[in-house]
Amino acid sequence: MTRLKNDRFLRALLRQPVDRTPLWIMRQAGRYLPEYRATRAKAGSFMDLCTNPERACEVTLQPLERFDLDAAILFSDILTVPDAMGLGLYFAEGEGPKFKRPVRNARDVDQLQSPDPENELRYVMDAVRTIRRELDGRVPLIGFTGSPWTLATYMVEGSGSKEFSLSKTMMYDEPALMHRLLSKVTDSVTQYVNAQISAGAQAIMIFDTWGGVLSPRCYQEFSLNYMKQVVDNLNREHEGEKIPIILFTKNGGQWLESIADSGCDGVGLDWTTDLSQARARIGDRVALQGNMDPNVLYASHQTIRDEVARVLASYGDGEGHIFNLGHGIHQHIDPDKVSTFVEAVHELSQPYHSK
Amino acid sequence: MTRLKNDRFLRALLRQPVDRTPLWIMRQAGRYLPEYRATRAKAGSFMDLCTNPERACEVTLQPLERFDLDAAILFSDILTVPDAMGLGLYFAEGEGPKFKRPVRNARDVDQLQSPDPENELRYVMDAVRTIRRELDGRVPLIGFTGSPWTLATYMVEGSGSKEFSLSKTMMYDEPALMHRLLSKVTDSVTQYVNAQISAGAQAIMIFDTWGGVLSPRCYQEFSLNYMKQVVDNLNREHEGEKIPIILFTKNGGQWLESIADSGCDGVGLDWTTDLSQARARIGDRVALQGNMDPNVLYASHQTIRDEVARVLASYGDGEGHIFNLGHGIHQHIDPDKVSTFVEAVHELSQPYHSK
Repeated sequence: MTRLKNDRFLRALLRQPVDRTPLWIMRQAGRYLPEYRATRAKAGSFMDLCTNPERACEVTLQPLERFDLDAAILFSDILTVPDAMGLGLYFAEGEGPKFKRPVRNARDVDQLQSPDPENELRYVMDAVRTIRRELDGRVPLIGFTGSPWTLATYMVEGSGSKEFSLSKTMMYDEPALMHRLLSKVTDSVTQYVNAQISAGAQAIMIFDTWGGVLSPRCYQEFSLNYMKQVVDNLNREHEGEKIPIILFTKNGGQWLESIADSGCDGVGLDWTTDLSQARARIGDRVALQGNMDPNVLYASHQTIRDEVARVLASYGDGEGHIFNLGHGIHQHIDPDKVSTFVEAVHELSQPYHSK
Repeated sequence: MTRLKNDRFLRALLRQPVDRTPLWIMRQAGRYLPEYRATRAKAGSFMDLCTNPERACEVTLQPLERFDLDAAILFSDILTVPDAMGLGLYFAEGEGPKFKRPVRNARDVDQLQSPDPENELRYVMDAVRTIRRELDGRVPLIGFTGSPWTLATYMVEGSGSKEFSLSKTMMYDEPALMHRLLSKVTDSVTQYVNAQISAGAQAIMIFDTWGGVLSPRCYQEFSLNYMKQVVDNLNREHEGEKIPIILFTKNGGQWLESIADSGCDGVGLDWTTDLSQARARIGDRVALQGNMDPNVLYASHQTIRDEVARVLASYGDGEGHIFNLGHGIHQHIDPDKVSTFVEAVHELSQPYHSK
């Protein structure tokens, strides 16, 4: 494979020296970009975009054409795995993702398939290979998965949820069944991510979108526990290069120490956690990724610069910081604001790496 | 006024000895009760229920008829104050609360009215007086308000929100204007709550539903700061009785120390915070209220008992704990499950107060 021309992101993730703080943006290939909306309109549905490797590659690269970002992230969806396990993913107009066959009982758990990533999920691996070829070493490619708990909530609810009543009732009332479900999901996720690594993903991010809706005890037992198993079983090296892993639990600020103990290389932070305090708590062990409030991008160009300066100052001097938002970029953000954001990070971060 | 027959809640809030852990339930008068739904159907709209003191009293007392709870809470809505400030509250069918005249600029802030609680909000004070009379000293009555920041988000957005783009843009881009808005809301809220105290509210809870969507710096500056001002200016004694104050920031688990420093008597906790750790952090200064996951009430009777036992054990021996859910009870909960919950707290908490 081609040698990387820009390895800032990977170096920062391994807490090695860089010339400026690397930056990428969660959901950087998304609806706020007119060129994304155009490709999406051509593709038809959101899933048509995910399942067509050429189109997935096209939208993955779009933000890199506009902005000088330090990483690409595979364009896909966290629900590809449950879909391949047999649940029948579909998107009802204006309603978000749904499953035709949600998991409600022991029989449903038993019937779950264990997808072969190069078969049922081959479209994802083809997208990874296509993107790597088209990137041609410009920046590293991040692969990703949803956390087992996060995927399980969708699988049990059959859709997105606000209260998680079905998934939490299974967890509280039938913990052994929930553990069986989570074990199966963990196996499939692990194979899926290892296949992404084989196909060319150079770092991995685990999105634990819904771990933060759990009590501390349940978080440990039903979410972090399974993310640890994924981390333990990933191929951490490929073709002589380290494959670092970032773990991100939204609303997980109270549990940073145990997240850092999972064996991951980096911890994603939302904006409710103070970056300097997070660094004091776990910065000796892991890199930190984040954590500007995505709403700052609605504000003026000057405010965006000021907030970038604040986040950088909060982390302070030295290595181990990857700049990002604390959550995915919103769809109504003006791309010009994103330019200001990217330029501010480039310009203002250099003094923190002057050595 | 009649002497209180059951003062467990007030005693626990002041960290005085009690025979068992007192319990009330956030949103205890609500849609999960068939008798509530019946009264609501008679009343017409939700606001008709709030603005009619007899009806508001009726639904306030309904959960006390069914369950042996240790406090009543005024049936009302946090948006009564913005409504009385001139925003024109209405409820669009199936859409939640909205304002006809949201606050978007300096002119809107200047035009805000400063409501006289015994005039524009007299219906609330009449409800407090009616409820106190009908309670006849059975249990104390809790009055409440939304936090200034929480109210300001609704006032600027004009409705509920998921992203808070308008309110946060005002906060980031025009902090001086947001501070003027928050000052005005704080003044109105303070007068409103003091009027509730004069009318007979025996404790006050401040609901900071949306403080937890802020960064740590913004939380201090735009939410906690104004809650402190409210706390500082409340009448903490009425007719020789102390009026304790509980402050509850949902998702505020990272900021408990500064919340406890606000001058409040009790801190409400959602279920993402470990109660024993919270007690170690701030239990020397304040009582703690919470914090069972409301989803536990979907589980079996046995699971409910087990989780109650767990929460009690987590707080441990001694005074200063008020049992509650970590958030409002959900509308689809079976009232029989609530009976199990209440009985479990009564029965299982006694050993923790055996001295």
